[in-house]
Amino acid sequence: MKAVAYEVRPEDEIRDLIESWRKAAEAKDIDAILSHYVPDIVAFDAIAQLRFRGRDAYRKHWEACLSMCPGQMIFEVHDLNIAAGDDLAFCHSLSLCGGTGENGEEKTGWMRATAGCRKIDGKWMIVHEHFSAPFDMESGKALFDLQP
Amino acid sequence: MKAVAYEVRPEDEIRDLIESWRKAAEAKDIDAILSHYVPDIVAFDAIAQLRFRGRDAYRKHWEACLSMCPGQMIFEVHDLNIAAGDDLAFCHSLSLCGGTGENGEEKTGWMRATAGCRKIDGKWMIVHEHFSAPFDMESGKALFDLQP
Repeated sequence: MKAVAYEVRPEDEIRDLIESWRKAAEAKDIDAILSHYVPDIVAFDAIAQLRFRGRDAYRKHWEACLSMCPGQMIFEVHDLNIAAGDDLAFCHSLSLCGGTGENGEEKTGWMRATAGCRKIDGKWMIVHEHFSAPFDMESGKALFDLQP
Repeated sequence: MKAVAYEVRPEDEIRDLIESWRKAAEAKDIDAILSHYVPDIVAFDAIAQLRFRGRDAYRKHWEACLSMCPGQMIFEVHDLNIAAGDDLAFCHSLSLCGGTGENGEEKTGWMRATAGCRKIDGKWMIVHEHFSAPFDMESGKALFDLQP
């Protein structure tokens, strides 16, 4: 019997990375979430600040975010589009995010997500992340009710 | 005399691409802006919709945006960070955006920008763009007064 080496496509590796990260977010496992980021990640998150520089600052923000969501976390990734080379990749998707509040009511909204990745020592890592909701020009309010 | 071929680094080419695009936006030159995008661009813009699919849809949106800004456009790119390979790249930056209204008053705010690029037939093009402002969890309002 002969061993056959199958080539793993970078696109599939990025898909696995995003799914691993998504599962960690849904499980509210802060260490698992953070394990996908490089130490000097630059993150643009949907709320609170213009940017978060470095994994330590971003950890504090993630902790604050997860504490706002006492019940079950909902974190779906849709329309994932990946552009990947041998050691550099980016991807974008729409995320249905939300959770179940203390009253058991489910509350979700669509967000946009973009990630930039690098393969470092054989492992794909997220080096940049951008999450957002669009806002309405008239009211200045974030638009949570938009549908893809 | 001998001709010397200098190697052009992809990072420098991406810097040139973003500067060219920035100048086009500041000049409100819609054709020049659009010339940086692939026909099937997927764009997440700061306002109005979750996403824009294709250059034609994105052109309509750019036209609407530029018509909201009757005076001089302000479009600065700060802290541009580039990750570039031979034919794939992504970059992020903070943009100071705004304009001079009809009353001559200058109004600007900081936005976050991420772009994904591909080199196609020797030319770098933007295939994905993500612009946003973060919002406040309490009020649901976009945060325009944040400083980097």
